Amino acid sequence: MGRTYLTSNHHKKRVEKLAKKLAEENVESFLIFNSKNIFYLTGFSFIPTERPIILILHKGDVSFFVPSLEIDHVQHQVPFVSDVFSYFEYPDEKHPMYHLAAILRNVIKLTPNRVASEAPGASGYWGYRGPTLEEVTGLKFKLLPDVIMDMRVIKEPEEIELMRESAKWADHVHKYLQESTEVGANEIDVTIKASTQGSHDMVSELGDDYRPTGFSIFPAMALYRGQIGPNSYFPHALSRGLVFKKGDTIVTGASSDVYGVQSELERTMFMGEPSRRQKDLFVAMLASQTAALEAAGPGVYCSDVDQAARQAFKEHGVIHLVRHHTGHGLGMEGHERPFLDKGSKDVLKPGMIFSCEPGIYEKGLGGFRHSDTFVVTEDGIDVLTKYPRDLEELII
Amino acid sequence: MGRTYLTSNHHKKRVEKLAKKLAEENVESFLIFNSKNIFYLTGFSFIPTERPIILILHKGDVSFFVPSLEIDHVQHQVPFVSDVFSYFEYPDEKHPMYHLAAILRNVIKLTPNRVASEAPGASGYWGYRGPTLEEVTGLKFKLLPDVIMDMRVIKEPEEIELMRESAKWADHVHKYLQESTEVGANEIDVTIKASTQGSHDMVSELGDDYRPTGFSIFPAMALYRGQIGPNSYFPHALSRGLVFKKGDTIVTGASSDVYGVQSELERTMFMGEPSRRQKDLFVAMLASQTAALEAAGPGVYCSDVDQAARQAFKEHGVIHLVRHHTGHGLGMEGHERPFLDKGSKDVLKPGMIFSCEPGIYEKGLGGFRHSDTFVVTEDGIDVLTKYPRDLEELII
Repeated sequence: MGRTYLTSNHHKKRVEKLAKKLAEENVESFLIFNSKNIFYLTGFSFIPTERPIILILHKGDVSFFVPSLEIDHVQHQVPFVSDVFSYFEYPDEKHPMYHLAAILRNVIKLTPNRVASEAPGASGYWGYRGPTLEEVTGLKFKLLPDVIMDMRVIKEPEEIELMRESAKWADHVHKYLQESTEVGANEIDVTIKASTQGSHDMVSELGDDYRPTGFSIFPAMALYRGQIGPNSYFPHALSRGLVFKKGDTIVTGASSDVYGVQSELERTMFMGEPSRRQKDLFVAMLASQTAALEAAGPGVYCSDVDQAARQAFKEHGVIHLVRHHTGHGLGMEGHERPFLDKGSKDVLKPGMIFSCEPGIYEKGLGGFRHSDTFVVTEDGIDVLTKYPRDLEELII
Repeated sequence: MGRTYLTSNHHKKRVEKLAKKLAEENVESFLIFNSKNIFYLTGFSFIPTERPIILILHKGDVSFFVPSLEIDHVQHQVPFVSDVFSYFEYPDEKHPMYHLAAILRNVIKLTPNRVASEAPGASGYWGYRGPTLEEVTGLKFKLLPDVIMDMRVIKEPEEIELMRESAKWADHVHKYLQESTEVGANEIDVTIKASTQGSHDMVSELGDDYRPTGFSIFPAMALYRGQIGPNSYFPHALSRGLVFKKGDTIVTGASSDVYGVQSELERTMFMGEPSRRQKDLFVAMLASQTAALEAAGPGVYCSDVDQAARQAFKEHGVIHLVRHHTGHGLGMEGHERPFLDKGSKDVLKPGMIFSCEPGIYEKGLGGFRHSDTFVVTEDGIDVLTKYPRDLEELII
């Protein structure tokens, strides 16, 4: 079994690394609003709402500014927190941002010109409205929206282990999805049945090593989201309660949440023996994915991986059926930077994790796309999802 | 059975209403980025990613600017769309916002000083970075971030029917949650079991009238998210895979998605006969919720509803255990404006829908909060969730 969660010590090292980066930019205090970035740095997982929740990194110390309903929740989850400042509620009689300004001025004592933030003000979830940091403090904050995301792009060895574990459970739950798919079944029922079985197995096997983050309902999840039959032509279809029919081309999806890290696995499958055209498009897609995986490695341009996939599609005469690039970064969000895209200037580096999912889409017939998760290593790549990719294993 | 979806004609009327409001402000073209607002106006549901998707409302006509993977998806879902403009992919060699600028300049032909937008630029999901509208067009866009949300605050009769239906299924699925909860069970298993049963019933009974939006995995969902035993002290706990024990105070949640509209139902329950203190806090909570519901009605200040709830807590000597306000608007997002909050200046109006959920939290013992969904009518309120609120029905 891989490692299934990160420790406080790990979070503290991330905070130290960030503090060092900030010091290099002469920044003494940094305000962080993004909930996934806060989780990344501290392990504090929470429901983002209209109530601002702000991590204050000041001279290397971690403090929080939270609504009263989260005070003890932070202290419970973040053992190394210095101070938990709070306001009662949003909107309340005095806007939370003015409480924050008073704390920054009187308690933390910001040094002008040495302050930075991820965004001009609190994130605007669910009906929130409010003034900017500059408006309430009178100080100019240097905007550093990407500094934490830049850290997140290169995964640490421990994070790669979380992704490996996530990929393992994605493979596992996908087996149930394939087994439960049959002519006449409804995609919603199959999704729920497979995800229930896969999640049960995952929670049972991991036992106390399983640390849910609350980000997902199902710890392991395999799903249909409407890419069934002609509707699979829409690359980003959404679940419509469709029923499987003989002859359908279908595109699946599976993942699992291992301490917030989520792999991606997708397969093109057929309801019964595929037609000539279904086979041809499947073969082209598989050749394209194989070409992209073969092109990928440390020091390679993201755009060259995309071009390898496109070249294979060209050779199969189906480049006109392409609707998107070859892949995207993976980590704690559905998509992350960088992108395997012909316009990308990024280079693959060890520790980056990507989806590899070139796809083609023919109106009336459907979509053809596998997606696999791979990590870039020192001397190549390691494909973490292991589910069979070949046609004969994907006919139902 | 209530109505379970909205028609294109309904969406067209919303667009007309918005166009009229914009004309009053001398705005000829309006750019909309928020995915829920786009769904509200057109019925187009999609997965928001790093690829900008923009609704362009120009002289009353609805056009879209989308990545190539969504072109046919829009046409399929929005029968009254005028034009679907597109770019191949993000990031690509040319940033999508420059494609947009060319379309706005050469095809739509914006009139300077008569253009507005919801935000300065595209929403920053999942690794997106890009220039503002002003940077790519050289035009000043009037910012109208709230104009659609202001429309959404007052629900139309058809929307209230969707919410009524959603509340009905929340009640229904919550019954399964209560039935499946037992000492020794894991909260994740109970959540999945109850939601599976409730969703199955909902999909079966509604049949072709059920139109999934893809926003939720479970059409009907009843869940625990970690508010079990002492952990229920955290108002916004997250699922931790906790196991139910005798004596636990627990707080539940239930909802269902009816064409994107989501009700809210929560109950405080006890694992076995409650202690004296558990009973006292339950009684105080119930009195507070009852007081708030009695105070609510058309023409009443939101702050007065909150004060009614707080007054009841004061009378029971537990005001110091309050951690949040009494409720929030409901509709298509978890929380919406306005808030039942002592700092709110808003007045309840017919067609507004709220949660009513005053809560108290005692460290070591747990949280005490019911939540019900009510709509403001011409002469009072109508509580849409009907699940039993009394102690004797909530002991497991």
